[in-house]
Amino acid sequence: MIFDKLIEKIIEMQNPTCAGLDTSLSYLPEEMRAGVKDFQGAAEAVLSFNKGMIDCLCDVVPAVKVQIAYYEALGAAGIDCFVKTCAYAKEKGLFVIADAKRNDIGATASRYAEAFLGEGEFGEALPADLLTVNGYLGSDGILPFLEACKTRDKGIFVLVKTSNPSSGELQNLKLQDGRTVFECMGDMAERWGEGTCGKYGYSRVGAVVGATYPEEAKILRKRLPHTFFLVPGYGAQGANAEMLKNCFEAGGLGGIVNNSRGILCAYQKRGGDFAEAARAAALDMRADLCGVLGEIHA
Amino acid sequence: MIFDKLIEKIIEMQNPTCAGLDTSLSYLPEEMRAGVKDFQGAAEAVLSFNKGMIDCLCDVVPAVKVQIAYYEALGAAGIDCFVKTCAYAKEKGLFVIADAKRNDIGATASRYAEAFLGEGEFGEALPADLLTVNGYLGSDGILPFLEACKTRDKGIFVLVKTSNPSSGELQNLKLQDGRTVFECMGDMAERWGEGTCGKYGYSRVGAVVGATYPEEAKILRKRLPHTFFLVPGYGAQGANAEMLKNCFEAGGLGGIVNNSRGILCAYQKRGGDFAEAARAAALDMRADLCGVLGEIHA
Repeated sequence: MIFDKLIEKIIEMQNPTCAGLDTSLSYLPEEMRAGVKDFQGAAEAVLSFNKGMIDCLCDVVPAVKVQIAYYEALGAAGIDCFVKTCAYAKEKGLFVIADAKRNDIGATASRYAEAFLGEGEFGEALPADLLTVNGYLGSDGILPFLEACKTRDKGIFVLVKTSNPSSGELQNLKLQDGRTVFECMGDMAERWGEGTCGKYGYSRVGAVVGATYPEEAKILRKRLPHTFFLVPGYGAQGANAEMLKNCFEAGGLGGIVNNSRGILCAYQKRGGDFAEAARAAALDMRADLCGVLGEIHA
Repeated sequence: MIFDKLIEKIIEMQNPTCAGLDTSLSYLPEEMRAGVKDFQGAAEAVLSFNKGMIDCLCDVVPAVKVQIAYYEALGAAGIDCFVKTCAYAKEKGLFVIADAKRNDIGATASRYAEAFLGEGEFGEALPADLLTVNGYLGSDGILPFLEACKTRDKGIFVLVKTSNPSSGELQNLKLQDGRTVFECMGDMAERWGEGTCGKYGYSRVGAVVGATYPEEAKILRKRLPHTFFLVPGYGAQGANAEMLKNCFEAGGLGGIVNNSRGILCAYQKRGGDFAEAARAAALDMRADLCGVLGEIHA
């Protein structure tokens, strides 16, 4: 079961981190950008950078999160780069989280599920292990993803409490039953996952819970005992290790923390080779997290 | 201003319809699918079908809505087909609504905005006039789209009350201030659009309001006077012309109704050439809508 495998890899590596490949062309060292003059060239440069990242990170982090917006900005060539990046990461043993926040009515959600988690008559379209989704449309926009998860041992993360400054505008409003909108969405995620739990007690339906809101994270960690958290917000967005402690259970399980720019752009602060700088940043992050979480164990 | 232009075309054609190019390979006539054996072949067949659709519809409907999930299911080749479909529709004078329901934190929303509505250093990536977005993340997930809209005369539609059966699970819950979640999201859309209204009184921020919920549509039409509606749910999803009357102002303005499978797959019911059947279905739909809305005028 996908979350069991991910958890075992987190324990093995003692590192609940995923590296975010939100690779903007502008993040690349100048010499890698030189001569790029169209989408195709940009996509090739980004792929080469991503492969360098994956090579240097694959024995340090258990997973990568690939943010598809950065690839869509390069059109069809960018999507080809997304596909090749995901495939290369898998080849190197990394779990691949496609961060795409997809959402639609049932018939269309089925197509997104096929695209990211499925295998159609012509193979895998956008090969991922895990996918972020948005639950604003309710059950029938989520269940097609869950079907694909059950068939092919995949998982999803539902946006519950996002890391951005304005996330509270809707998510922190109180409903008449006393719950906040984010608690309600969390409850839905917990319910959608029912009956799919693996041996560590987490279902196939995870949740996105921003490290930037430790109070909300604390409420959610307690409220959603079977829901594994994908935790954005560490680093560039302002959350530190102490703040994200609330996203984890005792034993350091229950979540994986993303870091994108802090790893991708580490060479800009540290100097030297981009891949070596990224590896050093990822090792520092592991030390930082483990200093707070202690030894990770089941 | 984009909504002014769209409204003028709706008045000129006396048709507030957009044809949904949610083109699944399985919708194509058998002879167009014959011999397709990979994503590339499937994408080429879909493009050829879409071009036939656009040719036969471009003097009947003012706009097409291209549902990107169906193209993502064909990987990078599918995205190439999406791009070419959008470009061909524009060439034929149609407004292009990219139905992608994108959403993310600010930095990432900027990339999506660049992808669908912007023009980067290498040109347009996924060229659309209008884009559907999801507002669960609040203002800073929406404002980057609005910036792109202002710069390049584009527009967005925020999901407010969606057409699917489970949309009420979250959207119809009541907040402590007495509003439903969909009313709250509608109010946010109305507020995001402030200061961007064109001469017909609609802002650059429209709303998705399902025809399948006429009571909610009535509330929203009154509550959001500056918000243009994209109305899904007619036909295959179960809404008829009478039901969607509530989405419009007097004079038949204020919205555009999507129909995907009812037009795309018309040949399966009517027989004959797929394009001719689609055109006949679109003409029937226009007659159906105009029978309820009367003459459309400013």
